[in-house]
Amino acid sequence: MEKIRLGMLGIGNQGSMYSKKILAGECPEFELAAICDHNPKRIEWAKENLGTKIAYFDNAEAMIDSGKIDACIVAVPHYDHPKYAVACMERGIHVLVEKPAGVYTKQVRWMNEEAKKHNVVFGMMFNQRTNCVYRKMRELIQSGEYGQLRRTNWLITNWYRPQAYYDSGDWRATWSGEGGGVLMNQCPHQLDLLQWVCGMPKKVTAHMKYGQWHDIEVEDDVTAYLEYENGATGVFVTTTGDAWGTNRFEVQMDKAKLVAENDVLTVWEYDVTEPEFTRTNTKPFARPNKVEFQPETDGQNPQHAGIINAWGGAILRGEPLFAPGAEGINGLTLANAMYLSDWLGKTIDIPFDEDVYYEELMKRVATSRRKTSSEAVVADTAGTY
Amino acid sequence: MEKIRLGMLGIGNQGSMYSKKILAGECPEFELAAICDHNPKRIEWAKENLGTKIAYFDNAEAMIDSGKIDACIVAVPHYDHPKYAVACMERGIHVLVEKPAGVYTKQVRWMNEEAKKHNVVFGMMFNQRTNCVYRKMRELIQSGEYGQLRRTNWLITNWYRPQAYYDSGDWRATWSGEGGGVLMNQCPHQLDLLQWVCGMPKKVTAHMKYGQWHDIEVEDDVTAYLEYENGATGVFVTTTGDAWGTNRFEVQMDKAKLVAENDVLTVWEYDVTEPEFTRTNTKPFARPNKVEFQPETDGQNPQHAGIINAWGGAILRGEPLFAPGAEGINGLTLANAMYLSDWLGKTIDIPFDEDVYYEELMKRVATSRRKTSSEAVVADTAGTY
Repeated sequence: MEKIRLGMLGIGNQGSMYSKKILAGECPEFELAAICDHNPKRIEWAKENLGTKIAYFDNAEAMIDSGKIDACIVAVPHYDHPKYAVACMERGIHVLVEKPAGVYTKQVRWMNEEAKKHNVVFGMMFNQRTNCVYRKMRELIQSGEYGQLRRTNWLITNWYRPQAYYDSGDWRATWSGEGGGVLMNQCPHQLDLLQWVCGMPKKVTAHMKYGQWHDIEVEDDVTAYLEYENGATGVFVTTTGDAWGTNRFEVQMDKAKLVAENDVLTVWEYDVTEPEFTRTNTKPFARPNKVEFQPETDGQNPQHAGIINAWGGAILRGEPLFAPGAEGINGLTLANAMYLSDWLGKTIDIPFDEDVYYEELMKRVATSRRKTSSEAVVADTAGTY
Repeated sequence: MEKIRLGMLGIGNQGSMYSKKILAGECPEFELAAICDHNPKRIEWAKENLGTKIAYFDNAEAMIDSGKIDACIVAVPHYDHPKYAVACMERGIHVLVEKPAGVYTKQVRWMNEEAKKHNVVFGMMFNQRTNCVYRKMRELIQSGEYGQLRRTNWLITNWYRPQAYYDSGDWRATWSGEGGGVLMNQCPHQLDLLQWVCGMPKKVTAHMKYGQWHDIEVEDDVTAYLEYENGATGVFVTTTGDAWGTNRFEVQMDKAKLVAENDVLTVWEYDVTEPEFTRTNTKPFARPNKVEFQPETDGQNPQHAGIINAWGGAILRGEPLFAPGAEGINGLTLANAMYLSDWLGKTIDIPFDEDVYYEELMKRVATSRRKTSSEAVVADTAGTY
C-alpha cells in the first residue's frame, strides 16, 4: 500500500487531536480515510474542521466493514476498547488502542488472545514511552549494569483537574463510564512506564480516597505500596487534586540512584555496588564513591505522532512498536490490583483472581451515578497529557 | 549561677561530640563539670582527650548525687533515657535528653508526668529543629495562610549505614539494645519534624523490612502511609540501605506546595486556594496561577550547639527551647505506631494501646540476639546526623 488508510473511531478529545496531527502532515504514511462517532455534534464539528474528503460514519461496525480503512485508532470510552479492537482484528485491520487497554484485565486478556489469532499490528497509545528520559532510564536499569532494583518512588501528582473537567461529560469519573478515576484516565501512562522501566511488582497495597477533592464517585487520590519479587519496595502516589503537583520518579539500584524530574534524568553512579561495599568496608560512616551526571539521550520525545508513526512503520516494514498492544495489560493489572487492595482492605498478590475484580467492579457499576450537569464538551488538551 | 555546671551522662559518639563543642567554647554559658560512663575505656579516652579538670564517674547516680552538676545531658542507650532523666528531675537537675525520648511511649509518658512535678528545664536534642529551612516551613504551614494540609511526602533515605556501623557496638540495631533500627536511631529527627511542621497524623499503616540490607534483627527499610484528621494523606519512606539516598520533604497545602530538599525550601504559592479555584473555574484544563520562590529565612542552623545554648538560656533566663522535653513523645508515638502496624498487619489509630505496644516489643526483646562481633567503637560522626 502507498499510504495506510486510517479510520478514527471516536472523535472526542484524543481522536480530534490525532486527526489534526495527521492532517497537518505529522504522520506522512497515513491518510485519514474515515471518522466514526455516534454523537452527531462531533461529526458536524469534524466535517467543519477536518474537511469533507473523509468518509464519516455514526456506527463503528459500518466503518470497520466499509473496506475504506486498513488501520484503526480506537479512541472511544475505555470499556469499549477491547470490543472494537477485536472487531478490527477479526477483519484484518491493524489497530492502535488508546490507553487504558480496557477497564478490567479479564477483557484485555481476551483482546490479547484474539490478537494472537490475527495477523495485524496491534499497538497501544502509550505516548510517554517515546520520551527519551524514560527510554534511557529503562535502558540503564534493564541493562543490568546497576545490579538489582531496591526501591521505586513515583510521586505523580501533577494531573490536576478542576471540577469543570469532570463536569464536561456525564460519563467522566464514573464507575459505569470510565471504570475509575485518576488510575484509569490519567495514570495509565505512569503505571505502564513503572512496569516497563522497573518490571512488575508482585504485591500491591493501596489506599484510595473517592471524591476527596471533587464531586465524583471514583478515586481522585491514591497511595500505593509495592513489593517486588526480590524484596525491593516502591511507592506510587497520584491525585487530580493538587493544583500544582510533582512528577518525580526515583529508582534506587545496587549501584546507582536514578531520578527523572522536570524531563531531566539524573544518575548518581557508585563505584561499587552497595552489597559489595558493605561486605568489604570497615569504617562505620563510609559510603561508596559516586559520580553524578545526566546521561546523554537521543533527545527525542515524539509523543503521539511518534507512536502513530512507529505503528505505521510496523505495518509497512515490520519495524518495532514503542508499545506492543499485548503490553497494555501490565499497567492495567497494577491499577486493578490497587483498586482491589483498597476495596478488600488487604494486600493483593499479582496475579490476582480476575473474576473477583470483575465482580467488585460490577457492584460499583450497578450503583454508579451519572452526572446530570452537562453535555459532552471537547477541550483543547495540548500540553495536558 | 555564673556558668551552668554540666554533667555528661554517657561519653559515646554523641556525648563525646557535645563535650568537644563545650570545651571548644561553642556553648559559653556551660562548664563541663562532670562526665559519667560505665565503660572504663571511654573514661580513659575522655581523660586523655578532654582533660583532668573534669570530675569523672562510672556510676550515673553518683554523678547525679555529687552536687557537682546543675544540668545533665542524657546520652546513654535509648532504653535508659527516661530513667536517668527522671533521676535528674527528682534532684532539681535540668535535663537535656538525646533522641529518641525513649523506646516506648509508656516510659516517655511517665517521664513527662515526672517532669511536671519538678521545677527543672527539660529539653530534647532535636537538633534538626534549629535548621532555618524547617523552621520557616513550619512557620508558613502553621500560620494558616496556605489553608489546610492536603499531602505530606518525606523520602528520607539518606541515612546510609554500612555493616561496619552496626558491628561497632553489640547493642546496635538490636531489640534489647536500641528497641529498633532506623526509626529509633536515625529517624527520630524526621519523625519529630514531620509532626512539628504538619501536625500529628491520626492513622498509620506501615510496611517494614527487618535486616533487609544488613545483618541485623531490626528494621532497616520502612514505608509508612499516614492519614490526618482532615483527610489529608502522607507517605514516609526511610532506610539505612541506600548508598546515596534522598532527603526530600514535600507538603501540599490548599494554597501552596512546599518542598525542602538539599537544605533549600522552595514554595509554589497559588493566587487562590484550590477549593476556591475549583468552585469558580469553568475551564476543564485550567489551574490557579502560581508564583515560585525561595522564602527568606534567618539563615541560621546552629544544630546541637544551638539546642544546648537555648537550653542554657531557658535555665538562666527563661528563654524558649527549640524542643521542650514533653514533645519528645510525639515522634516516638509515630515510630511506635509504625512498628505496631507492621507487627499486627493493620492500620493503627493514634492514640493506640500503649500496653499492647509494650507487650509486642518485649516479645522481640526476649528473643533479641546481641551481635558478638566487636567491642564498642566510637566514631567521628561529623556530618552524619
